Amino acid sequence: MNNDVGIRPLFDRVVIKRIDERTTEGGIVIPETVTDKSQRGIVVAVGPGKTVDGKIQKMSLKCNDHVIFGKYSGTDITIKGKDYLIIKEDEVIAIID
Amino acid sequence: MNNDVGIRPLFDRVVIKRIDERTTEGGIVIPETVTDKSQRGIVVAVGPGKTVDGKIQKMSLKCNDHVIFGKYSGTDITIKGKDYLIIKEDEVIAIID
Amino acid sequence: MNNDVGIRPLFDRVVIKRIDERTTEGGIVIPETVTDKSQRGIVVAVGPGKTVDGKIQKMSLKCNDHVIFGKYSGTDITIKGKDYLIIKEDEVIAIID
Amino acid sequence: MNNDVGIRPLFDRVVIKRIDERTTEGGIVIPETVTDKSQRGIVVAVGPGKTVDGKIQKMSLKCNDHVIFGKYSGTDITIKGKDYLIIKEDEVIAIID
Amino acid sequence: MNNDVGIRPLFDRVVIKRIDERTTEGGIVIPETVTDKSQRGIVVAVGPGKTVDGKIQKMSLKCNDHVIFGKYSGTDITIKGKDYLIIKEDEVIAIID
Amino acid sequence: MNNDVGIRPLFDRVVIKRIDERTTEGGIVIPETVTDKSQRGIVVAVGPGKTVDGKIQKMSLKCNDHVIFGKYSGTDITIKGKDYLIIKEDEVIAIID
Amino acid sequence: MNNDVGIRPLFDRVVIKRIDERTTEGGIVIPETVTDKSQRGIVVAVGPGKTVDGKIQKMSLKCNDHVIFGKYSGTDITIKGKDYLIIKEDEVIAIID
Repeated sequence: MNNDVGIRPLFDRVVIKRIDERTTEGGIVIPETVTDKSQRGIVVAVGPGKTVDGKIQKMSLKCNDHVIFGKYSGTDITIKGKDYLIIKEDEVIAIID
Repeated sequence: MNNDVGIRPLFDRVVIKRIDERTTEGGIVIPETVTDKSQRGIVVAVGPGKTVDGKIQKMSLKCNDHVIFGKYSGTDITIKGKDYLIIKEDEVIAIID
Repeated sequence: MNNDVGIRPLFDRVVIKRIDERTTEGGIVIPETVTDKSQRGIVVAVGPGKTVDGKIQKMSLKCNDHVIFGKYSGTDITIKGKDYLIIKEDEVIAIID
Repeated sequence: MNNDVGIRPLFDRVVIKRIDERTTEGGIVIPETVTDKSQRGIVVAVGPGKTVDGKIQKMSLKCNDHVIFGKYSGTDITIKGKDYLIIKEDEVIAIID
Repeated sequence: MNNDVGIRPLFDRVVIKRIDERTTEGGIVIPETVTDKSQRGIVVAVGPGKTVDGKIQKMSLKCNDHVIFGKYSGTDITIKGKDYLIIKEDEVIAIID
Repeated sequence: MNNDVGIRPLFDRVVIKRIDERTTEGGIVIPETVTDKSQRGIVVAVGPGKTVDGKIQKMSLKCNDHVIFGKYSGTDITIKGKDYLIIKEDEVIAIID
Repeated sequence: MNNDVGIRPLFDRVVIKRIDERTTEGGIVIPETVTDKSQRGIVVAVGPGKTVDGKIQKMSLKCNDHVIFGKYSGTDITIKGKDYLIIKEDEVIAIID
């Protein structure tokens, strides 16, 4: 399930492009210190899901979901000069409509 | 299951709007220091439930439940200028009638 | 299952009203320092039980059981000016006849 | 299952009356410092057993069993002026014939 | 299943009589400092086995097996003036032929 | 399933040949300090998979997959003068297309 | 299943005779400090396997397999003047062809 960012997350992970909340029209502000990273972002790639009791568990998230996640979750990577966060689905807290 | 706060909690999480106990008529007082956050609030959004052994477990909480939760549970977020707590259902201790 | 204390504990929790042992006729004395809280109390509300393997596990405790529990268990709350302890059933050690 | 000590242990716990080894004819000596508590005792009450996979697991111990247990196991309580230890069955190491 | 040492280990435990390696003809030497206890011994009593998924798991060890175990495993006790080690079967590493 | 690197990883492990990102045309840059090891590499050998509930779980990775993995994962070894990383599949975060 | 080293490992353990890599023709070099122990060796005895869900899991390793294992795994013992390492199978990382 290739996608345009060129990263296929494994198992129940998703790839997220962080959004810097302070500027968004939706006015979402995460209580941040200057050094904190944004806890909001857009899902850009979704893994196939993990196997539990021999069955693959369907993922709840899909591309373009606007999400909030825990502060210290996942791994930051930079690919083709762009920063992404790769994180497990159950570390994503909520979807913002 | 969109709701009016615009936040859809994932899996077995709920979104809670904290209530500052000291002013409520019900006279609920949580032993607090000035810096402590209230451990009481109203449920404003409920997740779909988590999957256990391939089946989704029905949630016990529903919107407008008045609840008490553990002091250090969940993640505080601010959305459209309003503060919310996103917390897992099993960290909610009781419902206040 | 509303009750007269107005608190419905979730899952396998119970609400307990602590008893100060030193004064009871039954002569139950918990080795205490002055600052320790009593480890004895009366059950005033019982949760519905927790779900294990898709089935709700029946609770062993019932209202008015006189119980002993671990020293550092549960969460203390004050509701309508009264102090209660909300604790998981498996942290209750024994019933006193 | 009321018993004469008036304490009904919950789930897979047992109530034990400690024996001070140094005086027993059986000559059982637990390597002790003066402050250590005896690790031997007599079972005076047995819980109903814990539920595993929906079935209650039968207890292996019975009243009057003479047992040895881990040094830091269980909770000490005093009821009607008598000291008891309430402990989980799997913290009891062996039965002494 | 009473035995001549008068100790019936519970569940998946065994009772071991330590051997002081340095003197044995088999020339087994455990890299020891003077204070270390021997990690070799003879099995003198075997428990009934532990229950897993409702079935009792048969024990692999039997009386008189000559075994090696982890340095910090089990509990030392002294019964009728004799020292024994009570240890869980899965902390026994190997049988020496 | 012998392979040309002469290493057969056990269970759900894979063998990876690290790539030094800074020079790759794909422009993948892992935020690194000078001492950090690259978190990117090519899979050169794949284990048979681990057994869960009696069934072997099929591996998701295959030889020549270009992958990203956690910074502190796995064990570095040198075989026939070449450095490799042996790592469990679930510590591999994503495949780079 | 007696073997010529006279040690029968229990459950899913194997007995390994360490090889000092620096001298081997295969040129396998484990990045070592002088004090480190070799992480390579030959399997000289294999346990019967461990029981999972009531069934014994077949072992993947066999005698004479040339293996690599984690640095701090297992227990070192000396039997009949020879040094061996007793280790659980899942702490063995790979087989070297």
